[in-house]
Amino acid sequence: MNALIEQFARIVKNSSDEDIDMLTDYLRNFEKKQQGAFSTYLSASLNMTRKLDEQLSVVSIPNTPFIHNTMAIPHGGILAVLIDTAMGTLANSKCPEGFSAVTTNLSIHYLSVASEASISAHARIIRNGRQTMVIEGNIVQEDGRHIATATGSFFIIPKK
Amino acid sequence: MNALIEQFARIVKNSSDEDIDMLTDYLRNFEKKQQGAFSTYLSASLNMTRKLDEQLSVVSIPNTPFIHNTMAIPHGGILAVLIDTAMGTLANSKCPEGFSAVTTNLSIHYLSVASEASISAHARIIRNGRQTMVIEGNIVQEDGRHIATATGSFFIIPKK
Amino acid sequence: MNALIEQFARIVKNSSDEDIDMLTDYLRNFEKKQQGAFSTYLSASLNMTRKLDEQLSVVSIPNTPFIHNTMAIPHGGILAVLIDTAMGTLANSKCPEGFSAVTTNLSIHYLSVASEASISAHARIIRNGRQTMVIEGNIVQEDGRHIATATGSFFIIPKK
Amino acid sequence: MNALIEQFARIVKNSSDEDIDMLTDYLRNFEKKQQGAFSTYLSASLNMTRKLDEQLSVVSIPNTPFIHNTMAIPHGGILAVLIDTAMGTLANSKCPEGFSAVTTNLSIHYLSVASEASISAHARIIRNGRQTMVIEGNIVQEDGRHIATATGSFFIIPKK
Repeated sequence: MNALIEQFARIVKNSSDEDIDMLTDYLRNFEKKQQGAFSTYLSASLNMTRKLDEQLSVVSIPNTPFIHNTMAIPHGGILAVLIDTAMGTLANSKCPEGFSAVTTNLSIHYLSVASEASISAHARIIRNGRQTMVIEGNIVQEDGRHIATATGSFFIIPKK
Repeated sequence: MNALIEQFARIVKNSSDEDIDMLTDYLRNFEKKQQGAFSTYLSASLNMTRKLDEQLSVVSIPNTPFIHNTMAIPHGGILAVLIDTAMGTLANSKCPEGFSAVTTNLSIHYLSVASEASISAHARIIRNGRQTMVIEGNIVQEDGRHIATATGSFFIIPKK
Repeated sequence: MNALIEQFARIVKNSSDEDIDMLTDYLRNFEKKQQGAFSTYLSASLNMTRKLDEQLSVVSIPNTPFIHNTMAIPHGGILAVLIDTAMGTLANSKCPEGFSAVTTNLSIHYLSVASEASISAHARIIRNGRQTMVIEGNIVQEDGRHIATATGSFFIIPKK
Repeated sequence: MNALIEQFARIVKNSSDEDIDMLTDYLRNFEKKQQGAFSTYLSASLNMTRKLDEQLSVVSIPNTPFIHNTMAIPHGGILAVLIDTAMGTLANSKCPEGFSAVTTNLSIHYLSVASEASISAHARIIRNGRQTMVIEGNIVQEDGRHIATATGSFFIIPKK
């Protein structure tokens, strides 16, 4: 344990301002996960927040250097994480007791670069079948710019 | 700085064995990034390794709880990160000087749950045009199980 | 020529009621094409009608045995013809003089079986760029049933 | 009946050489369908031929003006018909007795314009599950040019 703390102190000492921001975010969200505010390490790392109602699921993350690719813009795969999470949350909310929904297909069109401080994916159901669902997902900025549009197929299986 | 180290010590004290594993991985890879071994925070967090030759790009990550969803299996979006990175690395390696490739479309079929300790995505070019590329990506396990198959479209733009 | 007419007479003699319906449709639309009402043999065969305004393109065909597969339901590929035509018509209407739009990617989810007498695909623009467009297409029945949803990418090229 | 034959004679009289070619093809294949050589009006119109073995399904059509769009190149939707038919034939050949496979998703990338006299789509299975299948389809010319690549999802349902 002490070795870990020493390593952390050394990392802090060698940190740029951006590194400190990243470490600060990471610790805050890791501690929140320990307190039950996040269900997975991944959602904690991404500082993911979710809203869900009957029709719509919205998942948001801050647009920080943590999710940037080598071109310093949000990694397309992370937008896929965001969209798939919004879709999956909605799909699972529609499953009968004892069943869950797994993604079988995800198709995303990337339209523009996300430039706002927060990125939100909205999901809504296109087809709500007994064994399969088709869900639409979109990332649209507050300023109206359309960042990505996606469709996903989900298969409904008994929970293990 | 001291507040950050105190917070880290508190997190360590409150950690499960799995938490300690996650923190250990995170610090090791964050420090490696400080030493230049990773180009982005995301690739460091995922402990991403890359191989690239004329025909093929391979990107691998360890299969740890960091990438798991609430069902304790690798998040489909993280597989998208992996596949998109393998594709993008290959696409960029084919761009002429002063140009880079951006993903315009990514379509993934999820076939099975990744169960091995390491997950690798392979990308190969289907169409290598002057303005657009189409790339195929696959995640196949060492035991032969096919985890995901994908196609991506890339658009070639002047670097900023 | 006489041989062709003799062959046609023989075919008519050997025809079922359904065959006669198909031949009747075919001749009517072929003759309309000769009179300039259709621009291609394919659109004549499918008896395709189009509506186009600033925002929306609608393409319709009758749901006859001509488009049915071996299960006696509309062939998924023909729905793709319908959707791609609606999208392409809209894309081309947005191209500057001397340019045309070609489909680079088409992704369709089939949701239900089309059961009404007419099938219509609607297309609307999601992203209208200088070099690429992304267009959404849907087939929705008059009774509200959603038959198919699709997205397509178009690339804008100089006309030959 | 006589009215139909008279109409046909009038159409022949007003025909261009290309019209005559189209009518000749249509009658030949319609008559073949009457003799049992084609199972649907659509496959007759397209003059579709199929090969199927354990691993692979191949469906071919001639590249004639019948399938051309307004740019005088094969309509992307018709390539979708071809690919979907190759995939569906293979999928159905793998279904247990009393079940059939329906397309739930089809995603096609168009890579080049088909320029040879015949166009063939090859399909092979990527995932052969009990309830779903994923199939890859490609159109590749004899000269090696890659025309289109596609993936399709199929759902296995009891026959009605």
